[in-house]
Amino acid sequence: MLRLSAPNGELLLQTPRLEVGVAGAEANVGVALAQLGHRVSMVSALPDTAVGDAPLQALRSHGIDCDGILRSPGRMGLYFVETGAGARSTEVIYDRAHSAFVRVPPEKWDWDANLAGAGRLHLSGITPALGERGTQAALRAAEAAGRAGVPVSFDGNYRAKLWESWDSDPRAVLTQLIARADVLFGNHRDIALLLDRPFSGDGAVRRREAAEAAFAAFPNLKLVACTARHVETSDVHRLSARVDRPDGWHETDEIVISGIVDRVGTGDAFAAGILHALACGADDAEVARFGLALARYKHSIHGDQVLIRSRDLAALLEEGKDVRR
Amino acid sequence: MLRLSAPNGELLLQTPRLEVGVAGAEANVGVALAQLGHRVSMVSALPDTAVGDAPLQALRSHGIDCDGILRSPGRMGLYFVETGAGARSTEVIYDRAHSAFVRVPPEKWDWDANLAGAGRLHLSGITPALGERGTQAALRAAEAAGRAGVPVSFDGNYRAKLWESWDSDPRAVLTQLIARADVLFGNHRDIALLLDRPFSGDGAVRRREAAEAAFAAFPNLKLVACTARHVETSDVHRLSARVDRPDGWHETDEIVISGIVDRVGTGDAFAAGILHALACGADDAEVARFGLALARYKHSIHGDQVLIRSRDLAALLEEGKDVRR
Amino acid sequence: MLRLSAPNGELLLQTPRLEVGVAGAEANVGVALAQLGHRVSMVSALPDTAVGDAPLQALRSHGIDCDGILRSPGRMGLYFVETGAGARSTEVIYDRAHSAFVRVPPEKWDWDANLAGAGRLHLSGITPALGERGTQAALRAAEAAGRAGVPVSFDGNYRAKLWESWDSDPRAVLTQLIARADVLFGNHRDIALLLDRPFSGDGAVRRREAAEAAFAAFPNLKLVACTARHVETSDVHRLSARVDRPDGWHETDEIVISGIVDRVGTGDAFAAGILHALACGADDAEVARFGLALARYKHSIHGDQVLIRSRDLAALLEEGKDVRR
Amino acid sequence: MLRLSAPNGELLLQTPRLEVGVAGAEANVGVALAQLGHRVSMVSALPDTAVGDAPLQALRSHGIDCDGILRSPGRMGLYFVETGAGARSTEVIYDRAHSAFVRVPPEKWDWDANLAGAGRLHLSGITPALGERGTQAALRAAEAAGRAGVPVSFDGNYRAKLWESWDSDPRAVLTQLIARADVLFGNHRDIALLLDRPFSGDGAVRRREAAEAAFAAFPNLKLVACTARHVETSDVHRLSARVDRPDGWHETDEIVISGIVDRVGTGDAFAAGILHALACGADDAEVARFGLALARYKHSIHGDQVLIRSRDLAALLEEGKDVRR
Amino acid sequence: MLRLSAPNGELLLQTPRLEVGVAGAEANVGVALAQLGHRVSMVSALPDTAVGDAPLQALRSHGIDCDGILRSPGRMGLYFVETGAGARSTEVIYDRAHSAFVRVPPEKWDWDANLAGAGRLHLSGITPALGERGTQAALRAAEAAGRAGVPVSFDGNYRAKLWESWDSDPRAVLTQLIARADVLFGNHRDIALLLDRPFSGDGAVRRREAAEAAFAAFPNLKLVACTARHVETSDVHRLSARVDRPDGWHETDEIVISGIVDRVGTGDAFAAGILHALACGADDAEVARFGLALARYKHSIHGDQVLIRSRDLAALLEEGKDVRR
Amino acid sequence: MLRLSAPNGELLLQTPRLEVGVAGAEANVGVALAQLGHRVSMVSALPDTAVGDAPLQALRSHGIDCDGILRSPGRMGLYFVETGAGARSTEVIYDRAHSAFVRVPPEKWDWDANLAGAGRLHLSGITPALGERGTQAALRAAEAAGRAGVPVSFDGNYRAKLWESWDSDPRAVLTQLIARADVLFGNHRDIALLLDRPFSGDGAVRRREAAEAAFAAFPNLKLVACTARHVETSDVHRLSARVDRPDGWHETDEIVISGIVDRVGTGDAFAAGILHALACGADDAEVARFGLALARYKHSIHGDQVLIRSRDLAALLEEGKDVRR
Repeated sequence: MLRLSAPNGELLLQTPRLEVGVAGAEANVGVALAQLGHRVSMVSALPDTAVGDAPLQALRSHGIDCDGILRSPGRMGLYFVETGAGARSTEVIYDRAHSAFVRVPPEKWDWDANLAGAGRLHLSGITPALGERGTQAALRAAEAAGRAGVPVSFDGNYRAKLWESWDSDPRAVLTQLIARADVLFGNHRDIALLLDRPFSGDGAVRRREAAEAAFAAFPNLKLVACTARHVETSDVHRLSARVDRPDGWHETDEIVISGIVDRVGTGDAFAAGILHALACGADDAEVARFGLALARYKHSIHGDQVLIRSRDLAALLEEGKDVRR
Repeated sequence: MLRLSAPNGELLLQTPRLEVGVAGAEANVGVALAQLGHRVSMVSALPDTAVGDAPLQALRSHGIDCDGILRSPGRMGLYFVETGAGARSTEVIYDRAHSAFVRVPPEKWDWDANLAGAGRLHLSGITPALGERGTQAALRAAEAAGRAGVPVSFDGNYRAKLWESWDSDPRAVLTQLIARADVLFGNHRDIALLLDRPFSGDGAVRRREAAEAAFAAFPNLKLVACTARHVETSDVHRLSARVDRPDGWHETDEIVISGIVDRVGTGDAFAAGILHALACGADDAEVARFGLALARYKHSIHGDQVLIRSRDLAALLEEGKDVRR
Repeated sequence: MLRLSAPNGELLLQTPRLEVGVAGAEANVGVALAQLGHRVSMVSALPDTAVGDAPLQALRSHGIDCDGILRSPGRMGLYFVETGAGARSTEVIYDRAHSAFVRVPPEKWDWDANLAGAGRLHLSGITPALGERGTQAALRAAEAAGRAGVPVSFDGNYRAKLWESWDSDPRAVLTQLIARADVLFGNHRDIALLLDRPFSGDGAVRRREAAEAAFAAFPNLKLVACTARHVETSDVHRLSARVDRPDGWHETDEIVISGIVDRVGTGDAFAAGILHALACGADDAEVARFGLALARYKHSIHGDQVLIRSRDLAALLEEGKDVRR
Repeated sequence: MLRLSAPNGELLLQTPRLEVGVAGAEANVGVALAQLGHRVSMVSALPDTAVGDAPLQALRSHGIDCDGILRSPGRMGLYFVETGAGARSTEVIYDRAHSAFVRVPPEKWDWDANLAGAGRLHLSGITPALGERGTQAALRAAEAAGRAGVPVSFDGNYRAKLWESWDSDPRAVLTQLIARADVLFGNHRDIALLLDRPFSGDGAVRRREAAEAAFAAFPNLKLVACTARHVETSDVHRLSARVDRPDGWHETDEIVISGIVDRVGTGDAFAAGILHALACGADDAEVARFGLALARYKHSIHGDQVLIRSRDLAALLEEGKDVRR
Repeated sequence: MLRLSAPNGELLLQTPRLEVGVAGAEANVGVALAQLGHRVSMVSALPDTAVGDAPLQALRSHGIDCDGILRSPGRMGLYFVETGAGARSTEVIYDRAHSAFVRVPPEKWDWDANLAGAGRLHLSGITPALGERGTQAALRAAEAAGRAGVPVSFDGNYRAKLWESWDSDPRAVLTQLIARADVLFGNHRDIALLLDRPFSGDGAVRRREAAEAAFAAFPNLKLVACTARHVETSDVHRLSARVDRPDGWHETDEIVISGIVDRVGTGDAFAAGILHALACGADDAEVARFGLALARYKHSIHGDQVLIRSRDLAALLEEGKDVRR
Repeated sequence: MLRLSAPNGELLLQTPRLEVGVAGAEANVGVALAQLGHRVSMVSALPDTAVGDAPLQALRSHGIDCDGILRSPGRMGLYFVETGAGARSTEVIYDRAHSAFVRVPPEKWDWDANLAGAGRLHLSGITPALGERGTQAALRAAEAAGRAGVPVSFDGNYRAKLWESWDSDPRAVLTQLIARADVLFGNHRDIALLLDRPFSGDGAVRRREAAEAAFAAFPNLKLVACTARHVETSDVHRLSARVDRPDGWHETDEIVISGIVDRVGTGDAFAAGILHALACGADDAEVARFGLALARYKHSIHGDQVLIRSRDLAALLEEGKDVRR
């Protein structure tokens, strides 16, 4: 997906220019993990035009293996962003219907080949929400991962508008997908929707109740991770992170995030941070802390992706540093 | 008037580029009202050159009827802006002398035709301050409005430097204009200047005393509206709004405005907000709240005008919203 | 339609920026005619988002009446342009499927109202090529014009790819439309496709033969206009113009067009030039000369539209002028 | 004077940006001579604002001594440029009335001090054309040069519009100024206007006749220099140069100038080239050749000034060089 | 030195553009003092290329006398900046090895001539750290100042990496230089390094102890000035200033600096502020206050230098001013 | 190497911005071949900073395998470009001394591993010219290619300034390298330098004589390729291509290249075109024609590299095409 954003804090097309970047939930997670030194492969479809070349080049520039990206008919999925400030919210206008990805016939994907040698399959809930073919692609990918013994992580990213735009049964689809996952990114609201039941009670109590219900419903699940965000203005948010295990949980303190440059993609940065820390064998407190740190860091960077090299990791976990020379 | 501003928070001509936008007190109010769905006509004069085409096109782009804009000899009024940050104030350098507008002979304006069918005439105190011809234009417009039964709103916008640059009697002129107005935008300092008398006492007491003096001096006046601003840094201000009626008043709580993008034009946004809410039949509390909301929102937008569509109105009155997708 | 173009002669997304402009065959003709002082109304559909606001504002900025533009569901039609240079051709990538326009149900258009008081209806062959609903819209518009006695001009703009993308019968549709037109923009290749017959012979002979066939097939037709273009490099073309009447014709000398800034939209500039000259009562030699002059002039301007004010008309018809002060 | 130009070959305010540069006939000559290693002082007046700082900084950046520049009331003289292409001419819109310079009372200038130690005073015909005070300034400067034995060069730069805008007698003023000059930049049309007599005949004959008439009328005059320009398109001109002495003349071949980037200021570059070559003791053929070379070179540079360092002089006189590494 | 910075808060080369400015500790102090009305001369060396012209022009544009700048072999010293935001620190990457300055043979500098008529010599600790030749240049300059009775100010700017990159003895060199200074910019950590001894104790006690040690070690020293900075986020710092005399000291309150645009160069702005206030005969409280005010103001300006004209000095010392018109 | 270029035809640092791109002879050839569908690996060294990341990301974005690129101490090689126009030549200022590449100890390179599976090793004459370590690297690479049976192509790129900057024997080094090559890019002047003998006679005769001398001196050589360029202005060149075999040769007609956007890198595009056509098994006439076509195409593209996808190959070989839709 390409992101077209108004430059320099302008409104959309206040001046007749747009800045272009690669975007998309899985791409964002992939770029972050590649930056952190992981081997990452991306599976998707892009139109075989100069417009489709752009995201391919961007992904490859970060060292992502793009052999699994098909060049096929259809348009390039786009979205427009207008970055908020003060009392004005960031606004996103999607234009991703009929993209090359959602036009790929299910049999064109060779999931067994794509997953050969993989250490993990990461899926976003946006993929199945895109329509029948997106759902098929996600389900088949998850099945192939099951066959190959590749663990699956799943980020809910529930978008009601997408599911409502076609004759869909989101609960049935998501249930099938999460049943195959060991890591779920989602909060108590996502789980309530998924299990079609409310969670009452206060803050941490409710969050735990929801996580326990998820573990009960999905026996393969080993970890549920989420953030809680309070928006003061478009420039100042408060954020905390939490990971739940079947037998315990860890929740960080809430931090203040000010001087926000770009809030879009912070959820994907969080997911990447969690997956990175898990892969490094960190304990749950560190996992939550690292996910939060990467999400926080993303707020300071233009574009959909958190761009941070392994050599900058130390800086990530410190706060309030002066100029680095 | 054209606004030439240094880009990206630079000082003026720190790099050799300027961003250009349409500006001017009445234009700003007009654009805001047009955005909110009102029918707006603008009366002014522009040089018949490519430079004069620019503001004409900008006004038309917002759907403003520009049939009342003359193309005539003289230069384009300009002003230069350097947007402040932190401890550095925003600075404005005017270059509007000898503009096409102030060279139009009074008899060239056909105010009766321009006001035919109008629901309101909005005037700024800058217009008469521009010189003899500006004064004539404003007075004749107000007289024509009187003849046609069109209510007049008047925004003081007192600029001592402008009045002092010619052989003027601002009090005599402004008194004549306000005598014809039903809505006045001005605070206790403006009224003190106008009536040549001080108002002592504390905050709200002084404000009420001034408003009552205005209602006493100008029997046609039905509403006086103003804001009170406290500047902490160039990026953080506090603001409250107030409307006075002959028989009562409403003052909002003070709000903090942070992450300021552009403070210029917020007074015009306030005026537009008040006029919109009045036109919608809102009660005084809502009128003050809406004026304040539009003024606050303007701080988040580059340029002189608050750009907000009817479809974004709901967002305007909520605070601290996250990304809108 | 929005046009997204690579800036400064770059390849598409060579740097991550795009310049945005309004585009579309009818819009281009409309903007040119509005610039030249004609009253122009545009009928179309745009999504009700900030992205859809952009072309609306651009059209209004030129003084075009946009009351006939619906705001309705669907996406914004886009196209990407990479401007050629030297041996490298300009390249255009369309992304206009599923736009708001092609999703409007035929009964939503009120052509009788839209055409009330109109002096002419201008249609492009791209409109019916967009699909069933585009065809319906064009046919109904032409029928309404017939009912109202409004003359119709039609610009072929034959795009095989568009017609082939759905179950279409272009010849049947175009024949119906041209049957109602008094002015046709098209050359011998267009007419050959339309009438399904070849025209042999040399240059001017073949052109005349084609025009005569068109007049024979479409008795309402009073004028056929076309250009002939020879491309030397992306920066240097040769161009001539021709108008045919049932009883005669005029063809200009071929001119060299160098220093080409942007070749896109020159056909629409030609059409606008012909329509302007016809409206001014020019004789056929002048009509052809003026169409050619406006087309030539367009080559020197960025974007889809020829931007020229009445006050610059004299300059248009002179050649090789030095700086105008 | 500041120059505000549309960027990248756009029309004026086609996008809402302007590029800013220092400009003005004498400033252009001064910058070129300073680049070539001459000591240059500038005498003028600028408003004491950030806008007035810009040209001061630009002139100083080239090493020009600006101690003779007053900071005084009045506005900054501006002009807008839209660079032509192909069939579209470059267009200039002046906005220099009421500038700080033309508001300086004559007695404020200390010409004797300004000229102390000077090797030459260069004046442009634009200065006296700006009004009574401009005329006074130019005449007094020329008189002071006479007193100090400083030779005067004068560039006609005849602008009818400027002289017609006030109650002026250009011939009387210019005659007085040129009477004090040893070098005059002007062609047969300028001399015809000055002496109020026509010169008939063909090319070189007419040019010589005019020069001889100038030498006869102004006994102090030692050299008359001019160019002859033929404009093919905005991008391709032909140019030749000529110098006349009382006892002979030299005229270069005509050269083709293609790939024109910016034609404005080429006359000032020519004057600077002539003055540089004269100062270096070159013979007349070299003088003409160098003036033409500098004028040609200016066509390849954005902005009003020819920017060339002594170290690039060799490159200036060669043609068709490939990349310099 | 040239500064190459990522534009608009981007990461380095996130988009393929860089903004270029002049930089360097002494240059920054010199530009600030020239802006404030002092006569300033700069002594340095620049390559004789278009790249070396750029900083020369920038320095001259501020009115700095550059006759002491040699054009000589070697490269242009560069550094890259990525401006921080929120949790992300500003990052600086130096590329200044092998610059023209460090290749100048010591005997090429004519320090006696350069210092003729000077009121002060300001040196930065970066100069000797650049290598053998930098050390020689700094020592000889200081010796010449001693001979000429020109007071010396010295800003520590200790950069361990620079000293470690060659066979250096920083303490020996710095001791020699500071022995000749009357003003030292440095805090207790700098003095501890210099004197090779720790200072224990709390805040103000430790600072005074260090200053007293410096006065004891360097009898010529009359004033030691420093700031204390606490970094909350990249956008919000807290800062206080302090000046020590042998017989007393003054320390300002700590101020909050928010809305930070560019933190680089704030130490040089502080030094310039101290030197300016000293030159104006201010008392120590004012000296500290003015140094802090100039440092604070610098945080609001892009680039290495604090750009403030004498006419803006009043604004500098006020806080929280609204728009200046 | 990074290329820093003045934007939009400006002079270097005429405005304070630079555009950044990846550059370098081998990189340029590699990018072109990768675009055309070949598997390409790059061997080099880059500093381990954000500045060094930029070229790495750019190379990877084109699909080049960068596993052979070391991250090591030293600076980033840079060069500055000012693109010519009309009579003004393009100017290049190198700043590549002391780069990370020339500081790599010879034993750090693992040429055997780097060449495993390679189909060809391409070397530029710039590499050995950079100094002792560059020479060692080139020689060892060529030796390893010999061991592995990997054919070597060598592009002379003779830069006298580089060889003269150290104690070098270019003839000895180049002779060793070319002795191992089967393809040499170089013209009669390069060969004359190499063999230390002149070639007299006219055009084609001299070229053949030089090629035959090269084949005689280097028995492994199978093909010599070169272009001949005539520069009319910076915007218009004439170019022909030639390939020599021991037993014959082919030379194309000279073509005119106008509308030149960027001439830098056209020699590398030529080399890539020759290598591509050879790899495709083309005959010599086609090889020469394709090399010339790619070189010509490069002139129309900003930056050092010819960016052309396999899908655009057809367009490459046609001339004078109109807009591609």
